[in-house]
Amino acid sequence: MGTGTPPVILQGEPVLGLEAAAASLVAKDDVVLNLASGVYGKGFGYWAARYARRLDEIEVAFNSCIDPEAVRAHLKARPETKVVAVCHHDTPSGTLNDIDAIGAVVVEADALLIVDAVSSWGGMKTSPAACKADIYVTGPNKCLGCAPGLTLAAVSEAAWAKMEANEAAPVASMLSILDWKNAWKATEPFPFTPSVAEINGLGAALDRYLDEGPECVWARHALTAAATRDGVRAMGIDIWPERENIASPTCTAVKVPDGIAPASVIETARANYGVSFSAGRGETLGSLIRIGHMGPTAQPMFAHVAVAALGGALAAQGTTLDIGAGLAAVQLRLDAGD
Amino acid sequence: MGTGTPPVILQGEPVLGLEAAAASLVAKDDVVLNLASGVYGKGFGYWAARYARRLDEIEVAFNSCIDPEAVRAHLKARPETKVVAVCHHDTPSGTLNDIDAIGAVVVEADALLIVDAVSSWGGMKTSPAACKADIYVTGPNKCLGCAPGLTLAAVSEAAWAKMEANEAAPVASMLSILDWKNAWKATEPFPFTPSVAEINGLGAALDRYLDEGPECVWARHALTAAATRDGVRAMGIDIWPERENIASPTCTAVKVPDGIAPASVIETARANYGVSFSAGRGETLGSLIRIGHMGPTAQPMFAHVAVAALGGALAAQGTTLDIGAGLAAVQLRLDAGD
Amino acid sequence: MGTGTPPVILQGEPVLGLEAAAASLVAKDDVVLNLASGVYGKGFGYWAARYARRLDEIEVAFNSCIDPEAVRAHLKARPETKVVAVCHHDTPSGTLNDIDAIGAVVVEADALLIVDAVSSWGGMKTSPAACKADIYVTGPNKCLGCAPGLTLAAVSEAAWAKMEANEAAPVASMLSILDWKNAWKATEPFPFTPSVAEINGLGAALDRYLDEGPECVWARHALTAAATRDGVRAMGIDIWPERENIASPTCTAVKVPDGIAPASVIETARANYGVSFSAGRGETLGSLIRIGHMGPTAQPMFAHVAVAALGGALAAQGTTLDIGAGLAAVQLRLDAGD
Amino acid sequence: MGTGTPPVILQGEPVLGLEAAAASLVAKDDVVLNLASGVYGKGFGYWAARYARRLDEIEVAFNSCIDPEAVRAHLKARPETKVVAVCHHDTPSGTLNDIDAIGAVVVEADALLIVDAVSSWGGMKTSPAACKADIYVTGPNKCLGCAPGLTLAAVSEAAWAKMEANEAAPVASMLSILDWKNAWKATEPFPFTPSVAEINGLGAALDRYLDEGPECVWARHALTAAATRDGVRAMGIDIWPERENIASPTCTAVKVPDGIAPASVIETARANYGVSFSAGRGETLGSLIRIGHMGPTAQPMFAHVAVAALGGALAAQGTTLDIGAGLAAVQLRLDAGD
Repeated sequence: MGTGTPPVILQGEPVLGLEAAAASLVAKDDVVLNLASGVYGKGFGYWAARYARRLDEIEVAFNSCIDPEAVRAHLKARPETKVVAVCHHDTPSGTLNDIDAIGAVVVEADALLIVDAVSSWGGMKTSPAACKADIYVTGPNKCLGCAPGLTLAAVSEAAWAKMEANEAAPVASMLSILDWKNAWKATEPFPFTPSVAEINGLGAALDRYLDEGPECVWARHALTAAATRDGVRAMGIDIWPERENIASPTCTAVKVPDGIAPASVIETARANYGVSFSAGRGETLGSLIRIGHMGPTAQPMFAHVAVAALGGALAAQGTTLDIGAGLAAVQLRLDAGD
Repeated sequence: MGTGTPPVILQGEPVLGLEAAAASLVAKDDVVLNLASGVYGKGFGYWAARYARRLDEIEVAFNSCIDPEAVRAHLKARPETKVVAVCHHDTPSGTLNDIDAIGAVVVEADALLIVDAVSSWGGMKTSPAACKADIYVTGPNKCLGCAPGLTLAAVSEAAWAKMEANEAAPVASMLSILDWKNAWKATEPFPFTPSVAEINGLGAALDRYLDEGPECVWARHALTAAATRDGVRAMGIDIWPERENIASPTCTAVKVPDGIAPASVIETARANYGVSFSAGRGETLGSLIRIGHMGPTAQPMFAHVAVAALGGALAAQGTTLDIGAGLAAVQLRLDAGD
Repeated sequence: MGTGTPPVILQGEPVLGLEAAAASLVAKDDVVLNLASGVYGKGFGYWAARYARRLDEIEVAFNSCIDPEAVRAHLKARPETKVVAVCHHDTPSGTLNDIDAIGAVVVEADALLIVDAVSSWGGMKTSPAACKADIYVTGPNKCLGCAPGLTLAAVSEAAWAKMEANEAAPVASMLSILDWKNAWKATEPFPFTPSVAEINGLGAALDRYLDEGPECVWARHALTAAATRDGVRAMGIDIWPERENIASPTCTAVKVPDGIAPASVIETARANYGVSFSAGRGETLGSLIRIGHMGPTAQPMFAHVAVAALGGALAAQGTTLDIGAGLAAVQLRLDAGD
Repeated sequence: MGTGTPPVILQGEPVLGLEAAAASLVAKDDVVLNLASGVYGKGFGYWAARYARRLDEIEVAFNSCIDPEAVRAHLKARPETKVVAVCHHDTPSGTLNDIDAIGAVVVEADALLIVDAVSSWGGMKTSPAACKADIYVTGPNKCLGCAPGLTLAAVSEAAWAKMEANEAAPVASMLSILDWKNAWKATEPFPFTPSVAEINGLGAALDRYLDEGPECVWARHALTAAATRDGVRAMGIDIWPERENIASPTCTAVKVPDGIAPASVIETARANYGVSFSAGRGETLGSLIRIGHMGPTAQPMFAHVAVAALGGALAAQGTTLDIGAGLAAVQLRLDAGD
């Protein structure tokens, strides 16, 4: 992950890592700033609030992203803030936050940064170092294509020190990060039995990732998503993110036309074309449909499959659109190559 | 396979079954009629000629098919014919012969029929009984999606009798069908160690085939191929078979425009789109490109992938065509559903 | 598991289930009685104490077991006790507690019972119903032979009611049992992504377990352990449990002769014979060696392998013993058949 | 395999290789000397006779081995001999021939040598170069532990020349070796679809073999067999080979006491102990029982399992023997280490 030390591997899928980060890093008298531009970012606030003295929040519309300058202003006004939390790719919205810019602001303010990079890491250029994260949580079950069951967490020295100083940080617990600090050294026992099948799967997935080359993997995700967006718009449908440059390369969220129920579109796409889409979650549930491009599904040619299935299912629900134009636009972008 | 008795399972991919059928069924003083409408049908004649007194042949253009009436006329003129051989789906041409009609003619003439159904069985409605085959050779590595390594051969009582009477029929040999007649009975030993991994794979593949339902599997192949053909033609490209109704549901052969080298198109499709096409073989090598729709690749939505990759690769080689029109035609057919 | 409703499947190996049981069932003003006859039973007390008003404990020597009558007397003297916790098979000691008898006593006292049956369930006759457990924690990674990563927890109606009434019971947390109450109903979403590989593995393991027949599986474990114990004693070595009838059928703990270091014996067995033994843990670490008989390793003939490797490794460390006598005793027991 | 060029990989288990060697190398006017010290060696003669002008044979008792001096004398008396065939490890007898000494004699006589090393290669020190074989047939499904389905055949320059000159050598046939001469070059097409699953399995098995180290693999086989033989004899049972130094390291053949039916012993061993033994074949069918030590079953500790199961099953059939003494002898040999 580009850090000097190996990440901590927790034995549960990445929600464990996020809950553990909140439980371990946030001390009783901490003030936490949570940045919410989507359902997952918002959700982290509930965990942070459980452990903090006070939770502040900057929240923007869930098709938008956090402005680093707003973070700077907040931290200037509230210098007591100890921990900032941000979600890189808020999957239920298909939108990205500029975590590298946010990280630079947080460092200046001498706070610690928790980053949820669960569904971005491995699918685009991002690293703990680039965003100066203190706890950077991801997992192999998204862009590496593994079965779910593990968290990868990069932890900074400052975060280790803060967790060790935090009397309420879980130890001898599934929620503990501290328990696993030395677990991967040959001289240390495991706190409990690790998930050996998933650990082997992670090894195999990393072999593939490195064989293909991270830059190639990222480009594959980016092209798949760009072609999908072009195809969707050429059919006459809007994407959910308010601006192209905050749209995720690992998941495309599409705005559902008025009067159409996302659940019906999803059901039709599966029944008629054998293609699985996702709905939104929480606040975005009735408004959008999501097309995943992670790991093995991030094949540029699958943009045709996605656009055709989306177009066909929308048409079956009564939307008027031009599928041929959509597919032609997909092809144009595939041939442009980026 | 719809016969009363289980098929013989030979321990090599289906070319073993075809060679074994020739070696076992054709006796030294037999006259054989070989029906050649493609490279594979033609090829079987070389094996048959190795064992027969005389080989007659009806040969038609390799984008056409055998006329059952021509077979009837031949057999009337040559009543000494003992064995007739026909290839159901001549894969290097993507064309079908009407084996059920041919089989009826062969029965009338009191000859035995060898059918090569290697790449059709499991992907469309065909059975040993419907075509009255005496040896019907297929395998699990085409439309069932298994790894190659086994032949399935349905053998009629008349074929068993003829092989047993044939002094030159191989026994104690890899080419023997007779050796395996009783091998699958609990009371009989195997002639030699069977390929246990492939036998297990066959079991798993049959479970899937029966779970999905043969009619559904056939419909899935048919729709994938029909949508592909529609898309190809809507781009302005011809299919190879001279008539739509002899085009195979498990492989679509496309005529390559004049001046274009199939190998360059295939290489471009793989490099630019990650899609694998095949060339022809032998006489059809320089003339066509093949798109497989067998087993797991027979997904109707993959028609979009195939047409887009073919169109894009042809365009990159200088052909003028309308990919958008092709993809719109694919979608139309998919939505029509058959 | 013999209960009317399916068990809760938590997405972490069984220590998650044990921690979650303590966190969920034990309320702030509860008095808990923990029964400690080994390292694991003792360890559960630390979790229980984290959540309880007061922790009482009955502790016996770690080669012994809990007397149900002592539990009865304690509960009579302390009627305020709300929860009792017991470990069925304390693996680091290879000893069993009589949980069915203890459960009957706990029911009489109107308390709730937490049972750790992690390494006994599936390897011997035991069930939530027989011991009247309110939370019965086990997992597929011991006697079913799965990869670690899941907890199976049978939960009684009384336990659900108590957890729902417990304000401090985790919700929206990896430690939550409540989150998963309805997760396996078709109409309910998962709280978070389940470990699909392990869920599939569990399905396959249960198919095998039921195909072999639970009684046959239990008999296989019992005979393997009995033959191992006979062989060990016939070599002149004592088993760790103070009485034969509390020795586990899924793990045999062997007392290490004075002056011998268990770690050296374990290392020798692995180096010379390719056989893996385990040490004790905590208080039993320097005193015993453990031979596992769980799932696929519970083959009666492996008793020969275990006894030979143990005898050979002890001999290499200077112990005088009669390996031939040990192996003859193994064979005698195998031939006796139970 | 220690030759300068890669072996030919035929797409069928090693009986294919043996039949193909006879069909390809033996020309119509050749005189062949077949060396028969067991059922398999004897069996090769039937194939050789099918293609040769004349088959000579040196046959010895099936618990004995071929004397290289007898071969020398024969070849001196019959200088017209073109091909000599020998089985290295005649599995149904568990006996070895000294193929390196025999090969030296054959070279002197200017004949070509076919070696059946199917069940020895990979389990002991043997190579095409050491025995100067012209066609050396083996496979990955014995001592490498693969699923059956491939032949590995090392072919000398002289053998290629002879096959190319042999008009009757199969081409365009499953029995052809010539077809595959250049198949593994990147520039050449395959004659037909290879068994991809087995090819991948072979790659994985060779990785393991080379990681463990061939010498270690051979030593593991040798020790397992030696300990088994010691145990069998210490129980009072004879091994089948007439001398210890011709007993195979990959299969131990045991003489069945008078009045005992091997099939009953085999059935009892499976029913009572879950251990699979084999009977002899053909002439050795009623006389012996075989214990395999190939690939993953060649674990020295499994000698205990084998001896205990054999002893127990013989005792159950009425033989008087001392199992404890047998197992003590096994352990003594294991501790001696070779």
